Amino acid sequence: MAQTNSRDRDLRERAARVIPGGMYGHQSVGLLPDDYPQFFERGDGAHIWDVDGRRYLDFMCAYGPNLFGYGQPEIDAAYVRQLGLGDTMTGPTALMVELAEALTGMVTHADWAIFCKNGTDATTMALTTARAHTRRKTVVRAKGAYHGAAPWCVPRPSGTIDSDRAHQILCDYNDVASLEAAVAQAGDDLAAIFAAPFKHDAFIDQADPDPAYARRARELCDRTGALLVVDDVRAGFRLVRDCSWSRLGVQPDLSTWGKCLANGHPLSVMLGSDVARKAAASIYVTGSFWYQAATMAAALETLRLIRETDYLERITALGERLRAGLDERSKAAGFGFRQTGPGVMPLFLFDDDPDLRKGFCFSSEMLSRGVYVHPWHNMFLCAAMTEADIDGALDAAEGAFGVLKRQVRDLAPVEKLAFLSAGAR
Amino acid sequence: MAQTNSRDRDLRERAARVIPGGMYGHQSVGLLPDDYPQFFERGDGAHIWDVDGRRYLDFMCAYGPNLFGYGQPEIDAAYVRQLGLGDTMTGPTALMVELAEALTGMVTHADWAIFCKNGTDATTMALTTARAHTRRKTVVRAKGAYHGAAPWCVPRPSGTIDSDRAHQILCDYNDVASLEAAVAQAGDDLAAIFAAPFKHDAFIDQADPDPAYARRARELCDRTGALLVVDDVRAGFRLVRDCSWSRLGVQPDLSTWGKCLANGHPLSVMLGSDVARKAAASIYVTGSFWYQAATMAAALETLRLIRETDYLERITALGERLRAGLDERSKAAGFGFRQTGPGVMPLFLFDDDPDLRKGFCFSSEMLSRGVYVHPWHNMFLCAAMTEADIDGALDAAEGAFGVLKRQVRDLAPVEKLAFLSAGAR
Repeated sequence: MAQTNSRDRDLRERAARVIPGGMYGHQSVGLLPDDYPQFFERGDGAHIWDVDGRRYLDFMCAYGPNLFGYGQPEIDAAYVRQLGLGDTMTGPTALMVELAEALTGMVTHADWAIFCKNGTDATTMALTTARAHTRRKTVVRAKGAYHGAAPWCVPRPSGTIDSDRAHQILCDYNDVASLEAAVAQAGDDLAAIFAAPFKHDAFIDQADPDPAYARRARELCDRTGALLVVDDVRAGFRLVRDCSWSRLGVQPDLSTWGKCLANGHPLSVMLGSDVARKAAASIYVTGSFWYQAATMAAALETLRLIRETDYLERITALGERLRAGLDERSKAAGFGFRQTGPGVMPLFLFDDDPDLRKGFCFSSEMLSRGVYVHPWHNMFLCAAMTEADIDGALDAAEGAFGVLKRQVRDLAPVEKLAFLSAGAR
Repeated sequence: MAQTNSRDRDLRERAARVIPGGMYGHQSVGLLPDDYPQFFERGDGAHIWDVDGRRYLDFMCAYGPNLFGYGQPEIDAAYVRQLGLGDTMTGPTALMVELAEALTGMVTHADWAIFCKNGTDATTMALTTARAHTRRKTVVRAKGAYHGAAPWCVPRPSGTIDSDRAHQILCDYNDVASLEAAVAQAGDDLAAIFAAPFKHDAFIDQADPDPAYARRARELCDRTGALLVVDDVRAGFRLVRDCSWSRLGVQPDLSTWGKCLANGHPLSVMLGSDVARKAAASIYVTGSFWYQAATMAAALETLRLIRETDYLERITALGERLRAGLDERSKAAGFGFRQTGPGVMPLFLFDDDPDLRKGFCFSSEMLSRGVYVHPWHNMFLCAAMTEADIDGALDAAEGAFGVLKRQVRDLAPVEKLAFLSAGAR
């Protein structure tokens, strides 16, 4: 390993000097197998190359932003063309209005848009909008659900203080009784119910939304005057060409989007219905780069591809092909291998694997066969993937399951994930 | 006006339907004179064109990001080249390490960097880092100073709640006794002192930092173990090729940067010294686009221009030329016209002008002469400006002062700024 990883190793040493902990956030490989590369050189379509020149079929898709392929020509051409005209200027361009019109035309519940940069910007704006609208404070959201990295919602509390998380009540996702109890506890102070479109927490099985849970959340908001917020930052436009809960017939008052909205160019947005328009106009939100025109040009092109191509049907079919193929191969190898969540955003966990040593071994073997999978976070498919890519991944999986079968009795504990067995999550 | 503004007017009508209040944040023209355009078409060098084709010498520079000129060829070429290789991917590129090395090499106090997107991301990280480092809660900052638009610091509180602003004590900028009193009030709970590099609040005169204030802030942090944070998001690299308080011989523990770091491409950063490294490594901060490689390529090129060109000496000289010329022309016209703050980041206010009606008239007359100035926010010079541009602006000012002199007795009140006279700020 030492020789083929030499550039990555050198960069990690340099990074350790000028970046705290060597890397931060969701793109740190600190909790991944040791052979996972930290630094990449380039991306093209469905593939990435690490700094030591190894090529991978990338099932992370940049943790979501890559929907149509890295370097998608039409989207990037739209970006570069607008960059030549004007990007971050002293005011927005007409593209901002066109983009708000495009989104409100595509997303059923949406009457207006406020653009920003981070998904966390959008979820924080939703919190603020709901509190401004209701003049109440309390928010109900699901335990373990990720809504961003701001102090009010960040999963690791170091440096945050209790008051950052004041006036929040946690419930269990998909558990109607738990949701009702949380709302009852909020009394006459309920400002909002936040919901992920499906349960996509890290380290545990994903779960489709129970339609009864979604409908009850809507009813409880209607009854109390609170706002229903669907946080579609991660899943938006990968499940449906609308807000994800529209598949359940449930429309939120606010929805939050980001990730793939401009296929990797930095853009997120809060969408809302007319009921929340006045409150949204009352809050002060802004950022130096929120009015960037080039990103909006890229987003308009991304939305055109969403509307006019069969990307959704293709990635859905690819996700089914992957799931069926892995199911077959894992069974043949005799493993209890759980694939949860939508096929286009799968998460893999092995039975009887509390510290993920099986998952780590399987993932490393996939990596060594040129397929980048994640051992504990949901993955993403993109429209640049082909049936041949999926079939190649299935061949890799057959090899990986085979190695795992031979080694499974001798796997070393995964010390860095010992906190999982300790029941910390 | 109606005919020449027709595209802007149409876009405003469309925007009013799909964006709450028609526009939001600092780029809304809601508190500017009615003839200011909301929407722009393009930017080139020091100039912007509105959607009705009018060209302006732009003294806002996108509210700071434009340091080397809109569409600066070397910076944008670096961006586009990296975009073709890989931008937002499943991990960072070597550029992230190179950029952290470049910044820590240029900024005296900095030993490490954490990159993000919004200036507010950086200031919020500084807050969290200081609290993690000290395991204390209280932050002292100056009344009226802008440190971003997150709930803990946003100037307009709609939708925020008291707990968002808990454990903060406000003092008066440049007032040592007030700073000392705030620190005394914090008792043994002081986590950080935040400071703008100079007083650059909106609506009022700017003020250079009193070196005694800066030194006392440093001493109080040293004595209590709190961290000193200089928020250089707005002023960074416009006053010195280092953290702005290095001019006073005062080094912070943390500094926050954004705006012009990549000349308009979206990037901000928290820099810190070794004392805060462990705390910085302990907090969880991230964003979908924080690892974007193209923006880091643009930033590396921007930093190269900062190091290798005389941009700073040129914009400083242009700022002096503007100030001296305006001083002469305003005196000749008989106006008390206050130019405050650094010459490269000036703010203009008229004496005896509580609702800014003189400022509005002057600004409108400048605008009609092709010079975009702001009546109540600090402005920015950029390195794409020339002496001829400044001289043209001075000619415009001579005309604008002349018109103002003829109309000053008949100016209508500025209703939208009535809150200023009411003493709301």
